[in-house]
Amino acid sequence: MENVTLNVQGMSCNHCVKAIEGSVGELNGVKSVKVDLNEGTVDVDYNPNEVNVAVIKEAIDDQGYEVE
Amino acid sequence: MENVTLNVQGMSCNHCVKAIEGSVGELNGVKSVKVDLNEGTVDVDYNPNEVNVAVIKEAIDDQGYEVE
Repeated sequence: MENVTLNVQGMSCNHCVKAIEGSVGELNGVKSVKVDLNEGTVDVDYNPNEVNVAVIKEAIDDQGYEVE
Repeated sequence: MENVTLNVQGMSCNHCVKAIEGSVGELNGVKSVKVDLNEGTVDVDYNPNEVNVAVIKEAIDDQGYEVE
């Protein structure tokens, strides 16, 4: 298991939290995802044999948020 | 048909727009509802024989937003 903390712009409310946690959380190989609205971060535990950071970033981007 | 423009706090993103337009829009007697994120307003056209401002405010409040 590996972990990455991404800085994400545009997350503003609990709807945003649910959108990101839902889309990233349903990726194969993602064990947990936690959004911190105040910090503007998305923290993800994942299995590097099943998924990678590029795929995680794309899932966030697809929800309309910008990953720094 | 009557119109009311409500000042609403906490609307921050397009998810908020959809949540409010959806919940107010499905009220009986509401003809149209338009959220302006920049202005922080919700503009509603409604039939006063079917619905009133208190019911509209309650629908917004139920979505977690504060009507001024």
